Amino acid sequence: MNAVEFSAWSAAQLARVEQALSRWVIADAPAGLGQAMRYSVLDGGKRLRPLLVLAASEAVRGHAEAALRAACAVELIHAYSLVHDDMPCMDNDVLRRGKPTVHVQFGQAQALLAGDALQALAFELLTPEGDMVPPALQARLCASLARAAGANGMAGGQAIDLASVGKTLTEPQLRAMHRLKTGALLQASVRMGALCGAGVSGAAQAALDDYGAALGLAFQVVDDILDVVADSEALGKTAGKDAAADKPTYVSLLGLDAARALADELLAQAQGALDASGLGTVDRLRALADMVVKRSN
Amino acid sequence: MNAVEFSAWSAAQLARVEQALSRWVIADAPAGLGQAMRYSVLDGGKRLRPLLVLAASEAVRGHAEAALRAACAVELIHAYSLVHDDMPCMDNDVLRRGKPTVHVQFGQAQALLAGDALQALAFELLTPEGDMVPPALQARLCASLARAAGANGMAGGQAIDLASVGKTLTEPQLRAMHRLKTGALLQASVRMGALCGAGVSGAAQAALDDYGAALGLAFQVVDDILDVVADSEALGKTAGKDAAADKPTYVSLLGLDAARALADELLAQAQGALDASGLGTVDRLRALADMVVKRSN
Repeated sequence: MNAVEFSAWSAAQLARVEQALSRWVIADAPAGLGQAMRYSVLDGGKRLRPLLVLAASEAVRGHAEAALRAACAVELIHAYSLVHDDMPCMDNDVLRRGKPTVHVQFGQAQALLAGDALQALAFELLTPEGDMVPPALQARLCASLARAAGANGMAGGQAIDLASVGKTLTEPQLRAMHRLKTGALLQASVRMGALCGAGVSGAAQAALDDYGAALGLAFQVVDDILDVVADSEALGKTAGKDAAADKPTYVSLLGLDAARALADELLAQAQGALDASGLGTVDRLRALADMVVKRSN
Repeated sequence: MNAVEFSAWSAAQLARVEQALSRWVIADAPAGLGQAMRYSVLDGGKRLRPLLVLAASEAVRGHAEAALRAACAVELIHAYSLVHDDMPCMDNDVLRRGKPTVHVQFGQAQALLAGDALQALAFELLTPEGDMVPPALQARLCASLARAAGANGMAGGQAIDLASVGKTLTEPQLRAMHRLKTGALLQASVRMGALCGAGVSGAAQAALDDYGAALGLAFQVVDDILDVVADSEALGKTAGKDAAADKPTYVSLLGLDAARALADELLAQAQGALDASGLGTVDRLRALADMVVKRSN
């Protein structure tokens, strides 16, 4: 798959995801809550997680409606985590995707509720009534997402992150933190896409899990690099905030060159896992891994 | 069913629920998050929602493992909502169930994360691997819980609540708020219990929904009454805080006597719905409705 083909595929998927999110995150929730939810989710973000779900689902010829719902559900979890993470009691950030953060725009209480409601909406999307999505698949998707979002996934990683401000972490400790904080949801995106296919072999599933793990960590390493080398305008969020907050990062731990080398090594691991998967249609997953490591924001 | 029988049943169910919660809300989540979650959930609370799930499931001879998981999942959603609701940006309360609130004990960031992780855990409990609970039932339980917790359920009700501080609401507006804020989750408790039974008639299901709606509103009316007539020690939380916060309540709107009459009327409605359900084994649901209206804390 060449760059032009990937970019056309990606644009088409992003359009589907934006449309679906706009349809499902309705504005008519009471007392302004719907507006705060839409503000949190729409018109912004790279949509990396939805693209991973959709690419993984295509790799296994997955159930299209289930994959679209899973793509949106994962993005809602990601969006809620950003809303809560930006709040004053957490990272206290005022800028996200080039806009005021949700609590700046709508107040802290509404931001808290919008995040809570987005998490619930993710599980609602995964469980439509009727037979639009096979019920057993609905249940497996909920299980994967719940585990990845929870105490031994994203939320647990954030707790480690909070506890490690001002501390020196070893590389394995930093890796363990990121495996949960960002890795779990990225890996779950790939896994949920793969769940949408019937009869994927255990070996292929394991290879996709390896791909997701390598990609998840690569994503974080690159994030740490960009926090140092990019400016706030390109990032759409406050640059240099990790160093300012005295947070351990791959760059602070390894230095910039070694962090770049690690990102390349993880990219090679991710691509190697795709080679080993035995699946024929992994070009889009391949291109997404490239995109994660070579992005500039 | 006499009071002694109900009290034996209720004690036995509470013991099962406490044991299950203690097993499922594990302490080994990273960086103290598990402790904050356990603190939020264990050793406290009337467990009304779990009892409603279990009583409704018994009324329809429901799937026992599914009902226990649903009972705990609903309680986790309730617990997370209290943790977030007590935070300084919401109600800013320092006392809950006679103990310091979670953010006082563990800090605001940990409280925020503990609430988030409890919500995810609720959906994890509902979706165990394997065939312990039929997958189609897992999916329906997730759907009911997600809807009741979300923007057009509990979170939406809280948004209305926030927006109505200092305002005068009409009785229909107050009712609409409570139908979402506390009613949705109480009604979902009954509904989830009923889902655990195979082949419940549409009429019985509708009657149980009516029961849940009346009970949910009665619960809130009694809460408003107790906020005025009970002291903090009996409540285990700060009494008189609705008036202090200038929040509209049934007592401020109707006066104490009319609020008491409304509670009695709703109790009669709930009992009438059980009569109409055609189900034989509704004694425990009946006793729970009595308990809700006649409680002193």
